[in-house]
Parts: sequence; C-alpha cells; structure tokens
Amino acid sequence: MDAVSNSADTALRARAARVVPGGMWGHLHAAKLPEGYPQFFARGEGAHLWDVDGRRFVDFMCSWGPNLLGHLHPEVEEAAERQRRMGDCLNGPAEVMVELAEQLVAMLPHAAWAMFQKNGTDATTTCLTIARAATGRRKVLVARGAYHGAVPWASPSLLGVTAEDRAHLLHYEFNDIDSLRAAAREAGDDLAGVIVSAFRHDLGRDQEMPTVAFAVAARELCDAAGAALMLDEVRAGMRLHTGGSWELLGVRPDLSAWSKAIANGRALSAVTGAEWLRDPAARIFVTGSFWCGAVPMAAALATLRVVQRDDVPARIERLGRMLRDGLAEGARRHGLGLRQTGPAQMPMVLFDDDPGARKGEVFCATALRHGVYFHPRHNMFLSAAHTEADIAAALEAAGHGFAAVAAT
Amino acid sequence: MDAVSNSADTALRARAARVVPGGMWGHLHAAKLPEGYPQFFARGEGAHLWDVDGRRFVDFMCSWGPNLLGHLHPEVEEAAERQRRMGDCLNGPAEVMVELAEQLVAMLPHAAWAMFQKNGTDATTTCLTIARAATGRRKVLVARGAYHGAVPWASPSLLGVTAEDRAHLLHYEFNDIDSLRAAAREAGDDLAGVIVSAFRHDLGRDQEMPTVAFAVAARELCDAAGAALMLDEVRAGMRLHTGGSWELLGVRPDLSAWSKAIANGRALSAVTGAEWLRDPAARIFVTGSFWCGAVPMAAALATLRVVQRDDVPARIERLGRMLRDGLAEGARRHGLGLRQTGPAQMPMVLFDDDPGARKGEVFCATALRHGVYFHPRHNMFLSAAHTEADIAAALEAAGHGFAAVAAT
Repeated sequence: MDAVSNSADTALRARAARVVPGGMWGHLHAAKLPEGYPQFFARGEGAHLWDVDGRRFVDFMCSWGPNLLGHLHPEVEEAAERQRRMGDCLNGPAEVMVELAEQLVAMLPHAAWAMFQKNGTDATTTCLTIARAATGRRKVLVARGAYHGAVPWASPSLLGVTAEDRAHLLHYEFNDIDSLRAAAREAGDDLAGVIVSAFRHDLGRDQEMPTVAFAVAARELCDAAGAALMLDEVRAGMRLHTGGSWELLGVRPDLSAWSKAIANGRALSAVTGAEWLRDPAARIFVTGSFWCGAVPMAAALATLRVVQRDDVPARIERLGRMLRDGLAEGARRHGLGLRQTGPAQMPMVLFDDDPGARKGEVFCATALRHGVYFHPRHNMFLSAAHTEADIAAALEAAGHGFAAVAAT
Repeated sequence: MDAVSNSADTALRARAARVVPGGMWGHLHAAKLPEGYPQFFARGEGAHLWDVDGRRFVDFMCSWGPNLLGHLHPEVEEAAERQRRMGDCLNGPAEVMVELAEQLVAMLPHAAWAMFQKNGTDATTTCLTIARAATGRRKVLVARGAYHGAVPWASPSLLGVTAEDRAHLLHYEFNDIDSLRAAAREAGDDLAGVIVSAFRHDLGRDQEMPTVAFAVAARELCDAAGAALMLDEVRAGMRLHTGGSWELLGVRPDLSAWSKAIANGRALSAVTGAEWLRDPAARIFVTGSFWCGAVPMAAALATLRVVQRDDVPARIERLGRMLRDGLAEGARRHGLGLRQTGPAQMPMVLFDDDPGARKGEVFCATALRHGVYFHPRHNMFLSAAHTEADIAAALEAAGHGFAAVAAT
C-alpha cells in the first residue's frame, strides 16, 4: 500500500478525530491493528470487504463474528426486507418474535425458552440477573481473563469502573477444575452461578477447547449447589454446533447468551434457558427500546434456518481446516514456529517467540497488502461465504507474509 | 372489540407463553395494559399501526418513543436502503459514522463529540463511566423514581440486583434544589456527576418540566465540584428542541444520552459530550458488536436532517396542543377532572381521583375500540406523521372514552 492509496481513509480519520473521542472507540479501533489497516469500510459482499479507498479484501474477521453467512446473503436480506415493509419497531413484537423463539427452542436441546436483546453484553448481564433472581444469591464465578462484555461488571478496563461493580465476582482458571471448586467454596452458600465461554478465546493467547472433565465438573458443581451454569456463546455461537457449542462435550448449560452471528450482522442478542429458570426470567425487569425490532428477528430466523439446513458449522470447519493446514505448511516452509489453536472455524494464529505479536503484525500487514484481512492477536472467523478460492487467495497472501516474517 | 376479533393475538400469546418467559418481557408486555390491547403487531405506516387481527389504530405511543417521523418515512428508508446495499455491520465504521457525529456536533451546542451504541441504557451507563473516569470519583446523584435504564444500577426492579450495583448512587428529588445540594454534600469529595432526565416523566405521575432555577443550580453545583452534569435525553430527545431539551432553559449539560427517536426506530443510541470529557471518553473501554452498524446511522442522519429542516419539535408541539386542548374540553364536557402535564408533544393524561388508573384504563380501552391507541399510565408521544385528521379521530375516540368513564 502506498501513501496515496489510503487517502480517503486518512481524510476520514482526520474528520473523525474532531467529532469522535480518539477517532473511534472499542474493539474496532484501527489503532490496535498494524499500519496499513483501514479504519473505514465502504462495502461488503459475501466474504469480501472494500475499504473507502477501494481496496478489496478477503476478510477473515467477519465483522468480528456477526458475518456468518456472508454480507448481503440473499435469503437473509429477503426475509429482512419482507419484514421491513410491514414494520420493525412497533408498540410490541411481531409474530416473528414467536417464530424465532420457537426456532431456538427447537434447535437447542438445553433451551425451554428464549428472550431477546441487542448486545451480547445485554445477554450476559441478563443471564447473571436471572441466576441471582432464581437463587436469591449473589456470587458468580468468572474465568480469569475471559471477555463477557464492555460494561462495568465485565469490562477489560477498570477506568471508570468501581470496585463494587465487581464485588460479587470470583475467579477461576479456564479448564482448571481445582480452581473452579476453590472459587465455589469461597462463594459458599452465596453461589448464584458460573459463567463460562464456549471455549477459551482470550485476546493474544492460545485458544483452548474446554475438556469434557472440566465441563462435567462445572455442570456437577452447579447441580450440587442449585446454581446456574451460564454459557457465553456470544462469540462462538452457531459456528461450532447448531445445538449449542457444548453439545460437542455432552454437557448442557442452564442459560446461554447469544449474539454476534445469530442475525448475520443485524443487531440482536438472545438468552436461552432451561425450564427451572423460566419463572425468574419472567419476573426480572429487563427491556430496551429496540429489543422487539422485527427486522433483526426476521434476519435471525432466516439465518438460523440456513445454518441448520446447510450445516454451516461443518462447512466452515472444513474451510477452516484448509486454511489451517495451508498456514501450517507455509510456516514450515519458512522455518517459522506457528501455533494454531481452538476450533478451525475460529482461527487463532500466533507465532512462536513473538512478544508483542511483532511477527504477527508483519505477517498480517503483508497479507493485507496482498488483499487478505487477518488479525495478529484476536481470534478470526470463517463464514459460509468463504470459498476454496478465498482460502487459496489467503494462503497465497500468507506466503508473502511468512516470507516477510522470515526476512526480519 | 368482540371475542373473535382478537383471535390471532390470542393464538400468538398462547404460542409465546410456551417459548418466552411470561409470554413477553419488559415495558412492551401487554399485561400492563387494559384488556383489549393487542400484544402483537402486524404493520406500521406513518402514525398508524395494525395489530395481527387487522385492527388499525391511530397510535400515540410511537413505539414508546422511537417513531418520531412516522413508520416507513420515505427519506429515512431511502437513506437506510442506500447504505444497506453497500454494507451495515463491517470490520469498522462506514463514512456515515463521521457524518452523523458531525451532524450531532453541529446541532447540539453542548457537544464537541459523539459516540454511538445500541440501547438507551448503553448511553446512560457510558455517561456514568465517562464521568467516573474523568473525575476519578464514584458518586452519582440520581432523581428518586427516575428511569435511566433496565440494568442492575438503574433498573426499577430489585430482583436479581445486588446492593453493590447501586452502592455509589445518591438520590435527590427532581426540581428540589435543596435535596440536590444535600445529596451533593453527602457525596462530598467523591462526586463524579449528576444525572437528570430532560424533564420528569416518571410512570403514573404528573410530568414536570425542570425549573430554570433547578437546572441552573444543577449546573452550578457540577461546575463548583468539577463533576459532570449528565442529561438523559433518551426519552425526550429531538421532541422538545433540536439543540437539546435544556436549550429551552438556557442550561447546557456536559454529557447527554440519546436513543429512541434519533434513528426513527432503528437501533441506535449516542453519547454527546463537552470538550473536557473528550479524553476520558476516548480512554474508557466501551464497545459492542453492532455499535458501528452503518444502516441505523444512515437512518439517524436522515432523521436528524428532517427533524431540523422541518422543525419537528414545533410541529408536534402544535399537534400535541390540539390534542391537549381537545381532551381538556372533552373532560370538562363530561365533568371529569383531567391532568395533562409536561410538554404537549409527550402527553401524560391522568384522571383526578383515580387510584390505580382505573378511570384511565376505561378511557383507554374505550378509545382503543374506537381505533385510537392511548396509554393510561405512561407518557405518550406525538410523531411528525400525525395529522390534524388523526387528532380529530383521537378526540372523537376520546369522547367515547370520557363518556364511558363518566358512566362508571
């Protein structure tokens, strides 16, 4: 990328710096990415993105999760458009809310009911509130380093957060049964629940699938205490298994929090739950002005039907494995140590001996110049719109990236 | 309405009861409305709604605020559709985010910057986090009985909420300067800010505009303490004044929280702020998967341009006054004491001597049978799509309602 080619992005960043604090907020801030990455995007189609300077990328971030079927997926867009012409934000829900809840209950063996929100954080926060309402207790066990949202109780930053916002959280290590039991002992008879990510996908470190033993221990611990096992499916949901990610382990949660991919990019989240939590879920007060919006629900219903019909998790796992195998081969060819961890459909690619992910940054910046959008520290995402040709293009760009890393 | 005419709604409620806790959640639950009110809606157009049984209503709830210009407003829909064809949820924002922030900064004299979220609650919570980050203090003064969201720190229900979630809130009475100062004294040198609704619009009680003296006292108190004055515009925003509701009082907040009407029904909220809060706003971590969604931003930009061009607050105030005058006349004719309080464009209509709003329920249920959707306890909303014919229809239906109340 030469200095001229990103002039539209540069100009927009300058305008943004005047009217948006820091020019951008949160996880989509391009300052956290290697030089050359665009901040602003013009267009998306399938698995491809165009930035405001007209550069086209094969995209492996998928909007950081939401883009599961591809941008402008015809079946999703048609369902959304049909609902839009009738009504979106009305004085109450449309029929599609019931259809969507029925669809989730039919798909998810753990779920007797569903309710809907906008943000993943709304869903995780609602899970905690339901668990506390159901048990009359306060303590919630959270894995150290796990991300469950960007509000005071969950935020990875403590700035503007008070100690009381986290007063009733106790921490355990993911996949460490002893630490989970120790945290439960500390909670004593005040244990409301355990929240756990579908798998460990913390920023900048190797991913980890939960062991069956850990999942079973979490389930048993909650059963013994009468506490709620809460699965945070916000990031992983519908990419690992259409019945819920822990179906792979044979363990069912009491509550699951969903968002990101369930409406293929439209703003929606959901909590699904077991029968024993139906009544407390009905008695707590949670709401939002747009939570009944019918268009995102229509998009979600269409998305979930496609996910199930086409077995999207299997499709993207196969593509993810092609990518993973190709990357492993490319790294070997250049004599580079590469760690690829977690599910293939949500790749995490980290270089050995790479403090600060400097190698990762060179690799990604180089691949970007060859038209492929990777991330050096965060897990990536496959979509059903990716093709074998996209994987081939990614591996070719990755080859340039490995060469650049090997040359440093 | 006879028993047969709401059969589709009844059937959907039965289906919903199986898959949604309580059949519905939050403020849109029809159980809080008089008998005969539908839970489910099929269609919206302008200021009119159709329920799933084909009944048409002139609507005065406006989706509880969001519907400011009318459902399917052509300019808003065209802007949203143009953006949708390009991209909505991408790997970063689209140009429209900058344009929208520029528009808000241009419209709002208090604002040097803007940032965007999904829920009104996201915006109020972000305000508190910014105030705490900026001051390094914890206490926030909140008006007793005010609604600022449905998360643990703000929820009107304590079920599932811990004491610590509200540990740093101190309460004052709206429009009561002494109580505000007393709360500030209690906060001492730990005062981060004061949050206040644009006007008092608590459920089931007379509305109250802030007095100039109260607004000035809040401003002076915050200035003296170096604390942030936070205006909750979620409900009132863009209905009272296009420059912010407190422009009517000549007092400017440090932070404002916006949502509901700003994108005419699409999911969006915003925080706008003064220059001295730009840096802390950039340093806190707040984010969401859909916060950069470009379609709601395109809708918001179109909405705000129409609001300003057509001086929507003036238009809906005029229509609201027609409604208010007509209702007052109708109540007088039937010898009924009626209190209509707050801004005319957000009507609150309460009967004298009416514990539990029983008269209000009879009035509303009767008006509903005559095709007009009122609310017996909550403030209502005018939209720019309402016409004089709609007001005339409302007054005719209200006449039947008053007669029914007089006959009880």
